[in-house]
Amino acid sequence: MPGPATAALREAVETYWTAAEARDWDAFGATLAEEVVYELPQTRERISGRERYVRFNREYPGDWHVRVERIVADAEGRQAAARTGFTVTGGQESGPLQELDAIHFFTFDEDGLITGVTDFWPESYEPPAGREHLVERH
Amino acid sequence: MPGPATAALREAVETYWTAAEARDWDAFGATLAEEVVYELPQTRERISGRERYVRFNREYPGDWHVRVERIVADAEGRQAAARTGFTVTGGQESGPLQELDAIHFFTFDEDGLITGVTDFWPESYEPPAGREHLVERH
Repeated sequence: MPGPATAALREAVETYWTAAEARDWDAFGATLAEEVVYELPQTRERISGRERYVRFNREYPGDWHVRVERIVADAEGRQAAARTGFTVTGGQESGPLQELDAIHFFTFDEDGLITGVTDFWPESYEPPAGREHLVERH
Repeated sequence: MPGPATAALREAVETYWTAAEARDWDAFGATLAEEVVYELPQTRERISGRERYVRFNREYPGDWHVRVERIVADAEGRQAAARTGFTVTGGQESGPLQELDAIHFFTFDEDGLITGVTDFWPESYEPPAGREHLVERH
């Protein structure tokens, strides 16, 4: 089958996050196709092109650190998904320190460069009543 | 490599959703390992075991319909991720009709049965100011 193998996709996602955490924007940009599109469905925002997307990350306010929790890499579909945990201080987040879970979907071109990134930032909420007989809280 | 192939994992996730949409709880339960664990990190809820988890879905209030938007299947990691869109009427959701995006992570045993489901329900929010020069809304 043409295109990158599972291990190459996983490695591209790892490099993307390692470079972001290191603020190594050259290495970060090198994981991206020039025509990469970034999408945030929750805000209906879209950023088009590597230069703008690198700049968006470079300019992102506050101090943040990311750890990768899971990478799901799908060579047949030339795509991946990842779960990460962010620690954010200052910037646009409320409060002095915030722990955030994030989810990311990636698509790749035939060279293994990232052509699409779609992020989700789910927030905590209180569970609805009526299912306590099935559920434990942790 | 032992264990299910990518296509088998994708098919298991498709069957899981097709059966859920059809309220075919026998077919739904047949995709699950007996010791399946369901987790909702946003509410810190956990449901342990196939019987309880099927019941949770069977008893879920309101009328809901689901369409699968993307499945990322990773045979090497014996895991998958999916994006879905839900239409919910009544039940515990506010308003008469709600469109919800959801994200699901799955793990599998060596027979291709689902051993773990982790759901995320991200909600819409207004984007912070300061990035309008990079972003388009849609």
